[in-house]
Amino acid sequence: MNRSLLRAATRSFARPSTAARRYASSGVFNWEDPLAAAELFTEEELAIQDTARQYCQDRLMPRVLEAYRKEDYDRRILEEMGELGLLGASIEGYGCAGASTVASGLINKEVERVDSGYRSGMSVQSSLAMTGIYEFGTEEQKQRWLPDLAKGKLSGCFGLTEPNHGSDPGSMETVAREHPTQKGMYLLSGSKTWITNSPICDLALVWAKLESTGKIKGFIVERERCPPGTFETPVLKNKNGLRASITGMIQMDGCPVPAENMFPDVEGLTGPFTCLNSARLGIAFGSMGALEDCIARAREYSLERKQFKGNPLAKYQLVQKKLADAATDAAYGTLAATQVARLKDAGKATPEMISMIKRQNCDRALTGSRILQEIFGGNAASDEYHIGRHVSNLFVVQTYEGQSDIHGLILGRAITGVQAFV
Amino acid sequence: MNRSLLRAATRSFARPSTAARRYASSGVFNWEDPLAAAELFTEEELAIQDTARQYCQDRLMPRVLEAYRKEDYDRRILEEMGELGLLGASIEGYGCAGASTVASGLINKEVERVDSGYRSGMSVQSSLAMTGIYEFGTEEQKQRWLPDLAKGKLSGCFGLTEPNHGSDPGSMETVAREHPTQKGMYLLSGSKTWITNSPICDLALVWAKLESTGKIKGFIVERERCPPGTFETPVLKNKNGLRASITGMIQMDGCPVPAENMFPDVEGLTGPFTCLNSARLGIAFGSMGALEDCIARAREYSLERKQFKGNPLAKYQLVQKKLADAATDAAYGTLAATQVARLKDAGKATPEMISMIKRQNCDRALTGSRILQEIFGGNAASDEYHIGRHVSNLFVVQTYEGQSDIHGLILGRAITGVQAFV
Amino acid sequence: MNRSLLRAATRSFARPSTAARRYASSGVFNWEDPLAAAELFTEEELAIQDTARQYCQDRLMPRVLEAYRKEDYDRRILEEMGELGLLGASIEGYGCAGASTVASGLINKEVERVDSGYRSGMSVQSSLAMTGIYEFGTEEQKQRWLPDLAKGKLSGCFGLTEPNHGSDPGSMETVAREHPTQKGMYLLSGSKTWITNSPICDLALVWAKLESTGKIKGFIVERERCPPGTFETPVLKNKNGLRASITGMIQMDGCPVPAENMFPDVEGLTGPFTCLNSARLGIAFGSMGALEDCIARAREYSLERKQFKGNPLAKYQLVQKKLADAATDAAYGTLAATQVARLKDAGKATPEMISMIKRQNCDRALTGSRILQEIFGGNAASDEYHIGRHVSNLFVVQTYEGQSDIHGLILGRAITGVQAFV
Amino acid sequence: MNRSLLRAATRSFARPSTAARRYASSGVFNWEDPLAAAELFTEEELAIQDTARQYCQDRLMPRVLEAYRKEDYDRRILEEMGELGLLGASIEGYGCAGASTVASGLINKEVERVDSGYRSGMSVQSSLAMTGIYEFGTEEQKQRWLPDLAKGKLSGCFGLTEPNHGSDPGSMETVAREHPTQKGMYLLSGSKTWITNSPICDLALVWAKLESTGKIKGFIVERERCPPGTFETPVLKNKNGLRASITGMIQMDGCPVPAENMFPDVEGLTGPFTCLNSARLGIAFGSMGALEDCIARAREYSLERKQFKGNPLAKYQLVQKKLADAATDAAYGTLAATQVARLKDAGKATPEMISMIKRQNCDRALTGSRILQEIFGGNAASDEYHIGRHVSNLFVVQTYEGQSDIHGLILGRAITGVQAFV
Repeated sequence: MNRSLLRAATRSFARPSTAARRYASSGVFNWEDPLAAAELFTEEELAIQDTARQYCQDRLMPRVLEAYRKEDYDRRILEEMGELGLLGASIEGYGCAGASTVASGLINKEVERVDSGYRSGMSVQSSLAMTGIYEFGTEEQKQRWLPDLAKGKLSGCFGLTEPNHGSDPGSMETVAREHPTQKGMYLLSGSKTWITNSPICDLALVWAKLESTGKIKGFIVERERCPPGTFETPVLKNKNGLRASITGMIQMDGCPVPAENMFPDVEGLTGPFTCLNSARLGIAFGSMGALEDCIARAREYSLERKQFKGNPLAKYQLVQKKLADAATDAAYGTLAATQVARLKDAGKATPEMISMIKRQNCDRALTGSRILQEIFGGNAASDEYHIGRHVSNLFVVQTYEGQSDIHGLILGRAITGVQAFV
Repeated sequence: MNRSLLRAATRSFARPSTAARRYASSGVFNWEDPLAAAELFTEEELAIQDTARQYCQDRLMPRVLEAYRKEDYDRRILEEMGELGLLGASIEGYGCAGASTVASGLINKEVERVDSGYRSGMSVQSSLAMTGIYEFGTEEQKQRWLPDLAKGKLSGCFGLTEPNHGSDPGSMETVAREHPTQKGMYLLSGSKTWITNSPICDLALVWAKLESTGKIKGFIVERERCPPGTFETPVLKNKNGLRASITGMIQMDGCPVPAENMFPDVEGLTGPFTCLNSARLGIAFGSMGALEDCIARAREYSLERKQFKGNPLAKYQLVQKKLADAATDAAYGTLAATQVARLKDAGKATPEMISMIKRQNCDRALTGSRILQEIFGGNAASDEYHIGRHVSNLFVVQTYEGQSDIHGLILGRAITGVQAFV
Repeated sequence: MNRSLLRAATRSFARPSTAARRYASSGVFNWEDPLAAAELFTEEELAIQDTARQYCQDRLMPRVLEAYRKEDYDRRILEEMGELGLLGASIEGYGCAGASTVASGLINKEVERVDSGYRSGMSVQSSLAMTGIYEFGTEEQKQRWLPDLAKGKLSGCFGLTEPNHGSDPGSMETVAREHPTQKGMYLLSGSKTWITNSPICDLALVWAKLESTGKIKGFIVERERCPPGTFETPVLKNKNGLRASITGMIQMDGCPVPAENMFPDVEGLTGPFTCLNSARLGIAFGSMGALEDCIARAREYSLERKQFKGNPLAKYQLVQKKLADAATDAAYGTLAATQVARLKDAGKATPEMISMIKRQNCDRALTGSRILQEIFGGNAASDEYHIGRHVSNLFVVQTYEGQSDIHGLILGRAITGVQAFV
Repeated sequence: MNRSLLRAATRSFARPSTAARRYASSGVFNWEDPLAAAELFTEEELAIQDTARQYCQDRLMPRVLEAYRKEDYDRRILEEMGELGLLGASIEGYGCAGASTVASGLINKEVERVDSGYRSGMSVQSSLAMTGIYEFGTEEQKQRWLPDLAKGKLSGCFGLTEPNHGSDPGSMETVAREHPTQKGMYLLSGSKTWITNSPICDLALVWAKLESTGKIKGFIVERERCPPGTFETPVLKNKNGLRASITGMIQMDGCPVPAENMFPDVEGLTGPFTCLNSARLGIAFGSMGALEDCIARAREYSLERKQFKGNPLAKYQLVQKKLADAATDAAYGTLAATQVARLKDAGKATPEMISMIKRQNCDRALTGSRILQEIFGGNAASDEYHIGRHVSNLFVVQTYEGQSDIHGLILGRAITGVQAFV
């Protein structure tokens, strides 16, 4: 996004959260932002959030139900997001908005307020593919791919996880061999799984062990340059959650990648972990958006649904406690994510901080959504109340990019100095 | 079921749990039955459980995945269950097995070990429709319908819940008016929702308020005798759980029911609550079957899946704790359900006891399944691991036939003598 | 106890729980026994429970507050219990009652209904010291000590845990050396800690490694035969819980024990673990007694305390939920403990079963007592409401004789076949 | 405090948290401040925190164990705190430091890191008595009492809660009658209970209903002016927690208070609730201090204590999870409290925000301390590990100044617009 575009977009949109911010300013409690996190955001960040929210509510919300039912991700969404400057929003240059990490987090929050799958589709493009290229690519690589990725004209994916190595990517089996005859060419072989957007990707950022050194290196695989049978991306269907996103495998069998598509300097897990940390920070924001949507829907339902002498469910103590607990978690989680995003922009964030907020916000979003789902009683079974979709999504979100327990052990190690993985 | 059939079936089947029982007998810990509940069952009860288990694993398990994906319930299942004597198994006479309440509970457990939706389809037939007719019907009504319901030739459903009255059925709006001209005929009007099996039912046990008295009465509605437009049962699609069962509404608009199809004596909520209590007791058993399946699957996965230096997940303390917690809940819940079933057969069970075990076993099954799901990490998203299906089902199971909080308030009232619904 | 004494005692006492049993018999819900566990007990067991309850409420309840405040255990309690036959109640012969394991469990429940510390004082005498001698002692050892221990004339303690080896007793450092000159005499050296009753013990059942073999053996140390400085039992004061029991260390420095005081055959951890399993089974019952007392007190408080327009706290949904949850856990835990006690008498109980019920019942009793404590609001801070005492006690009870996590890992190992202690 | 004094104190003290701040600045994870909250504090705030911490660790820590054991609060502590400027620190003028609300919160955190009772003793002086006079007193009242209260020469207490009206102070029974003969004089009668510092108070800020209007008014009762028998403050002993603070009743029987000791303008619950909100904000900080102390102690214990093949407890996954969870809650809670403190200084805080952070931080501190206590196993029973004291304290802290459920219902009302108290 160039900033002027953003501004234009913003001006033409109503700003739904203005009222909310006014309340906080005058010391009135706003259930949508109980601890007035909006006070911590700049005008630009709030404008970007508004742009994102408007788009998400207007354009994504109407299609999510069908997309989820049919496991059908609309490829055009990336282009729409690209037009608004929502992709790679915190990258400077290369057609990106150069917004703050907080702004980028707020975009994630707005997208995930609609659906975690839509946020996943955006995350893989922005935080994994684009961040990888931006952080580790040569200037040429950046110039070549970032602008089209930012516009959503190209779709990128990120191949790290393997079928037998989920929480422990260092044991990966995918290998990059030098071509026996063609100099400056690598042949990639191996399988990656649970890869968001792989079936529709134009580019895949694939991590593989260099045969000669045994060290992990990053490669940008261009689908169009792969001969048939060397790069296959079968769809994984019948998922329990994130059904509005598309997920697949990457099966590589001697897939040729020129040396100029390799990241020159980064080696080992530093590369993928940098990307994952960027994505995890986005998830810490995004999960709070999903939880907030659950709160808003449960609150509305509790006010409309009447049982026992015409009282709204909202009048029951057990219902109020569920709302209070979830609202507290959403408020706390937003503050914590904002703090780490600010620290990141100040060069002071650490991976453990990101582990903490990814873990906690996902855990609390999942727990909160489940508890709020109880308010809907039997009606929760209907997907038209949306809460069941959030619940199913949030379980996957808690699980991917570091399952809760794994991040717990990362924190445990950071606290005690002793590792307990084995 | 006539007993001889059951015996025959039993003899010809391997008995998979024999080994389990032998272990317990010699004082060896059996993780599938940690507190040796099998010691509490008679030989007949164990034989019935074996019959049910064999059928469920052989015939239901292979089709559940597709059924769940497509929300497609196979009507023939009722007939298959009928052939084995699994329907209305605790009813004496009328072609039913006359087994103990424990035996009936164990059938529920085995069916729900495969899928809560299949158990729901059976419960509505056995505990709701058949129990209603058996407990409150005239001898003529019993003779007329129970044998074919027991065989699964007729399919029954149970119309109590209305769109605006979930937890508070006493406020129902469905009404039965005397026909203006036809003596001995009632016209039923109103809507029922979340009715398992309604779209495929031949008979619907419908509860309605008699216009003349305002008292709730039970009517057996025969679909084939209803003129077009008076009795419609549209399917409710796109459910979040129980997708292997079929659910619908019942929309009645002057649906004619002869007086001889009304239960003569029962009035008010006694009728439906008696049926619900029977179903709830079955759910208390059934939910433990689903939880046990989750334990078995998580255990197996944890032994096969290796991460970090080739250790199976089973070696990790955090994984072991999840398994230990869930196994404890399954063992405790089975004992409690068995106790109440025995008390019921001795005429000593109370509705509050059933509230307690329905609530607790559903709560713990849901919690346990969710925690065990974490063991599967990202792979949990694939429906082929089955655990996600149980998780989604068990949420609905916790919700229907008395949501957890409602049963909590029933218990609270029983403990304190003070009601807190309003 | 000889049985006739028990009977006599029983006859002369009112039976407070008769009414409760009558309710259950007629199918009325009894909040004190929600799942009618009393139906599982024999007349004799119920009579023993009544005897114990009467004694505990009449004689222990009035002194517990002062005892707890001053950390002052009254040594005469053992004699009083001995007179009633409550000590070593499940031992056959040697002046013991020869009651069932269930009866013994119910005694534990009644004592712990008053205070976990009083139950601890009894457990160490019955389950640890007496069970050890009964199971592993020679006939001569049994004849010599069991009758006086049963009467409470002698006080025994159990020395296993060491300062540096809590959860892992196999690493104990206490050693038994053969006397350099006196044949048939051992010299014990080492420290034991957190030993209930050690400061007032006449006998200490001490586990030590035989220097010559490195194997753990059990010794009955008679205090009166120990020269000054060889056997010291300093009191441990200022405990956070179990303050109505007395706890100390055992410090041995060349403490002489004749070979005839050694258990001849048992070796390794089999000996102490057998005793601990007996004690743990008692704890599984006892903790439910403490929880039931918390329920009764919280219920009473909630009915008497009025807030907001004169409503009793019992009318609030959040209060009712706490009571319902705790009552459920007490009912389930009692059933599970009963099942394992029955299995034990049938020779079918396993240590893992005991781990399961010790862990779960302690966990739930602790959690339940804490949640019920909230009902008392600020008044909970006063010890006169007793609930704070239970809370503090139950934490220790959850911790000793196998902390919850340790039993969780024992279960995890039993379920998976993989150990995760290291 | 005058600021120069504070500065002097600061300069002469080592600053223990400097290293911690440096880590955060360079992007190194600091387990004592995982989300780098220190980045949000000004230099002055950090200096004040250091002063407080130094005092608390040097002067309070050494006496807390005996104080707690003996329920013996040292009156001189108020003077010591006064000397350092820690009392009423956020009040401008009248000898107070005029520090920010964050600074005041950090003082609370440091005091409660040692003991919640010490923090309570300070809170009642600062947030309740001094804040009340500062917010609602006449200029003359402020001049007369605030300086000596700030120095700790006078001790104040706060009489709101009555024996029969804990969560619902609006129903108070204490009454202020005009003196029948002496004009300008009121006679106060009634009882207040659970009043921190009442037995040692010189002044009591008492809330009573004016007989003539039925409206609640605030009175400053001066003990020295009360004839014998009109103002008694008996100590409440044998508390379960907060034993290092002193608690009592206030029994007034025609206690004479001149009209000039009444707050002129404030009426109803606005007065006491303003004070309580100030105290609650302090508790939101303070409870995090107690939790952080539990974390530090549990961490240290887990590193020193070795079990099973010489591994420190810190190596066990189940232990690491406890530490990670608690550290997360401490970090989140500190951020949230800081946010609300900043909002308060900006005039944007609302009572519901304070309800949220008081509730959540107390809940999480209590839960965290209990879970960490498990790491100590049996040794937790010894008060020398301090964790048991925190656990007992934090239960009371969760309960007073609005029990968790009450704040939950306040939030529920704010979220839904429906009240559920009755």
